[in-house]
Order: sequence, then structure tokens, then C-alpha cells
Amino acid sequence: MVGLFKPMPKNFADRLLGQIRKLKNPSCVGLDPRFELLPDFLKGSNKPQALFNFNKKIIDATFDLIPVYKIQVAFYEVYGSKGFRALERTISYLKKKKKIIIVDAKRNDIGSTAQAYCQAYLSKKGLDVDALTVNPYLGWDSLEPFIEVAKRQGKGLFVLTKTSNPSSADFQDLKMKNGKRLYEVVGGKINEWNRGTEGKSGYGIVGAVVGATYPQEIKKLRKIMPRSIFLLPGYGAQGGSAKDVVFAFDKEGKGAIINSSRGIIFSYRNNPYKKRFPSKKFYLAARQAVIDMREDIVGKLNKRD
Amino acid sequence: MVGLFKPMPKNFADRLLGQIRKLKNPSCVGLDPRFELLPDFLKGSNKPQALFNFNKKIIDATFDLIPVYKIQVAFYEVYGSKGFRALERTISYLKKKKKIIIVDAKRNDIGSTAQAYCQAYLSKKGLDVDALTVNPYLGWDSLEPFIEVAKRQGKGLFVLTKTSNPSSADFQDLKMKNGKRLYEVVGGKINEWNRGTEGKSGYGIVGAVVGATYPQEIKKLRKIMPRSIFLLPGYGAQGGSAKDVVFAFDKEGKGAIINSSRGIIFSYRNNPYKKRFPSKKFYLAARQAVIDMREDIVGKLNKRD
Repeated sequence: MVGLFKPMPKNFADRLLGQIRKLKNPSCVGLDPRFELLPDFLKGSNKPQALFNFNKKIIDATFDLIPVYKIQVAFYEVYGSKGFRALERTISYLKKKKKIIIVDAKRNDIGSTAQAYCQAYLSKKGLDVDALTVNPYLGWDSLEPFIEVAKRQGKGLFVLTKTSNPSSADFQDLKMKNGKRLYEVVGGKINEWNRGTEGKSGYGIVGAVVGATYPQEIKKLRKIMPRSIFLLPGYGAQGGSAKDVVFAFDKEGKGAIINSSRGIIFSYRNNPYKKRFPSKKFYLAARQAVIDMREDIVGKLNKRD
Repeated sequence: MVGLFKPMPKNFADRLLGQIRKLKNPSCVGLDPRFELLPDFLKGSNKPQALFNFNKKIIDATFDLIPVYKIQVAFYEVYGSKGFRALERTISYLKKKKKIIIVDAKRNDIGSTAQAYCQAYLSKKGLDVDALTVNPYLGWDSLEPFIEVAKRQGKGLFVLTKTSNPSSADFQDLKMKNGKRLYEVVGGKINEWNRGTEGKSGYGIVGAVVGATYPQEIKKLRKIMPRSIFLLPGYGAQGGSAKDVVFAFDKEGKGAIINSSRGIIFSYRNNPYKKRFPSKKFYLAARQAVIDMREDIVGKLNKRD
């Protein structure tokens, strides 16, 4: 009778929150390498190879502290098929370390095309990562394929809601006839789509991207989407601070992951790390930045309790 | 003195409209191959190779009739780095035929990441195609890098405005406090961004994606963006017809390109073409579908005059 009943894959929210609890760390490292910013001694190889070598060192130096990594596809796609190969190698390496992987691709298209993006990232035939960021502008039928695959395969999604950049106001802050702003309407829809996907943790698999740079909007959106995990970019280099991001967490300190990319991986280029670590040891600077970030966020969360 | 003055690259709108005039054809073939739908005899090679072989045959059979091809990245990305290689080969082949190439990637991200997508697609260091589709949800600072590169390099952009899918209503049709719908606000911004980029044709380089499935919206948007080229997906397989798309053209029959993907490249699978062409000659079915599409659209345009 073996094989008749396939076990349901474990709920993405439960897996993610479980790993966060285990490492007592709700932060996420963004693997967004840029060749120009790599230490000189790594620039000898061809560019995609250099990106992978850099990532490997960062992962080795941080994986015992970090539950989840976010990979920005653009920084690999920039080198075409060879860059994509570096992306694939980075993902394989993270899987060996049993880390949760979010691909930040902000993909979006009409349903039949969205299926191809699903297969590329979420299915076993593709890169088979844990979660993907998607853009909501095309509406439900463009997101349904992702959500259906995520439900079946134990994966997650993060839908852009209020993004961290200054111009996010252009459209996301527009006021609707009913008095709500566009990002609130999008948040309301995410909450609907997320309903029924909750795991034991109480959180579901349709999450939201909310900029760490907008604390007031984080507060509002937390109320609109009480069961969605928030992925917050914009901490550190973009100006978001621990006191801004605490609003994304529930009373038990759950429900959010804070991403830092440049602030971690390129910390060796800036003080206070530059003084303490030579560029040869950029990965130790990254490790220290991870420790400092955890202390900063967890410190603020504990203080709040 | 050679090299002191680099000639300005020719305006994208002028190049595109020039090619359309030359071939008397405002239609665009979408190279969106799916392995499952290829003729069996092509399925012998590995999947990315099969996609390229298929594309090559379609291009050979249609390039003398078609001014511009649109490539949907998702159908290549689905095979990872190897799929991306098939994309690169398809683009090289189209360049040999001196065709205008639009990459349909619907990319979007915050400014510093958008620059990487720019480099991937529009710069000489990257795929160096003629135009890219982008998603507006993140606002101006996410689109500015694309527009700046497009201005300098003679490239174009098509910003999603009112998309062809049924759920495009979810957010794009939302009514704002000022009475406008979101797609109209986006259209208004595109018109602003396009201002000052016009070439001799009177059209600029910041265009709009408007679904052929929404004739009333096409009419409204044409008034809002009189100087933007419209890229209309949704003709054929998705239900848009020639009488719907004529509203996208100005009085002289300029200013729009109509895309068909499945309706052309997989025409051999459906009647009337299936009866006339064996699957071995799928490319001749595609050629016939191109001829029929041109006749359909140009016929309606001439009738209108």
C-alpha cells in the first residue's frame, strides 16, 4: 500500500516560524551580490563564478545564525544564462545547509504564463525553492497559479503590498473612492487569499512584502492581515530601524521576517565593520553584522513585551 | 576627432514605426514556445534546444512579414540557466534578421535593483534588446532607471496599464477618490514620463501595455496617452479582435502593435490551419496565420479610414 497516500508537505508558515524560533532570529540575509562591490581578491574569476564564491563564504559564515535567505534574481539575471547558473548553484548550496530560501523575483503575468514562473521556481521540476515574491497588479487570476502550487507543495508567497522605496507612494498610496489606500485594498485581498491556508502556527502561506521604511503602514497592514507573514525589506541600508519593524510582529513576537542585504553582505565596506575586519575576512564582518542585527531586533522585541 | 561625438542612437518609436510602415504590418509575433505544444518530431532534443529549434523555424517562415517579435521570458526561465541560453540564442537569431525585439518580462523592483534588470536586457553588456515590458506598481523611482537607459540607448519600454486578463479588474479598475480608475492614473503617469522622448514620428519611447480584450479602455487610454505606443496582447487566443484593437491606432493608422503568440506559433494545432498544414510544416501554418492576421487588422484599419 506504500505510495497510495502521499504525506501532505509541511505548511510553509509552520516551517518558517519553526526555524525562526529554533534560531531565535527573525532576520533574513539577502544574497544580492554585485561584482563591483566584491572584495578585490574575489574578482579574479569570471563574474558569475565570483558571485557564487562570495555567496558561499557568506553562507558558511552565517548559516548557523540565519533561518532564511532571500535571493534577488536581478543580480544573477544581469549575467544571463551564466548568471542564472550562479543562482542555481547558490540555491543548491543553501539546500545542502537546509536553509529556507525565498526567491525575490517580483514575477507577475497572466495565468497561463504565471504557471511557467511557478514551475521555474516552486515546482520540483524547477528550482524548488520555498517561497517567491510576486507583484499583484494583474489581480487574482495571475496569482492563483502560484497560490495553488504553494498549497499543494508546502510553499509560500510574498505579495508586494507597500514597498520600501520612496516612490511606492505614487500608486500604492492612492486614495480610493471608499477612503482606503491602494496598499490597504491589496492587503485586504491578500488576507482573503490567505484564509484557509493557516498551519498550526496560526499563520498562512500567502504573505506580504511591507517596507521596513514605513512604520505607520506596517501597523495598519498588520491589522488588515493578522494571519499573513510579513517580509520586510528596507532595514539598514534603506533606513528602516528595529523600532520601525517591531510593529510587524504579533504579541508573541511572531509573524515577520526582516531582511537585510547590503547591510550584511557588504558590511566589510562600511564602519564599524571596516575598522575591525580586513576585506579578506568580509564574511566575518557579515557574521558580526548578522549578530548585531539579531541583537537590535530581538532586543527591541523583548523590550516591547 | 573620431569618437568625440557619439551619434545619438535612433529613437525607438521612430525605428519601430518605420519598420511597421515598411512591412505594412502592425502585428507582432509572440515567441512563447511550450515544450508540450511542440510538434512531436521536434521533441527529440532536450527541451531548451527544442524551443530554439522551433523558434528558428517560426522566425525563418515569418521574418519577411513581421517587423517586431515579442519574447515571453517565463517560457525560457522555466528551464533555468539552460532555458535562458535558449532565450539568448533566439535573441541572437532575431538580431541577425535585423528584427525589433521586445522582451516581455514584466520586471519591476526598487531603483538599485531595477538597474540590474536594465543591464540584463537593455544595455550593450546584456541582451541588448530593443524594448522591455515593466510593471508600474512600485512607482517612478523603480521605472526611472529603465527610462534613463532607454533614452540614452535608443530603447523603449512598455508599462503595464490595463492588462488583457479577466482579473485585471481587481486592482486596475479600482475607482479613485478623484473618480478615475487606477489604470487611468497609471496611463496619465506614463503620458508624463513619455513627454520629451518623442521622435520624428511624434511618438515617444515610454509605451503602454493595453489588453486587446478591453476596447472601451483602449479608447479611453488612447486619449490619455496620445504620444505613447500601445502594445496590445490578447488578440486571437485570448479573444481580442481586429474591431477591438483599431481604437489603439491614431487617425493615420499608427501608434500600436498587436501581438499574437499562441494564435500564430501554435496555429498548426487548430483549424482552419490544422486541415491545411501537417504538423511537420507547423511554420507554414504560422506564416499563413501571420498573413491572415495582417489582413484582418489592416483590413479593419483601412475600412475605418
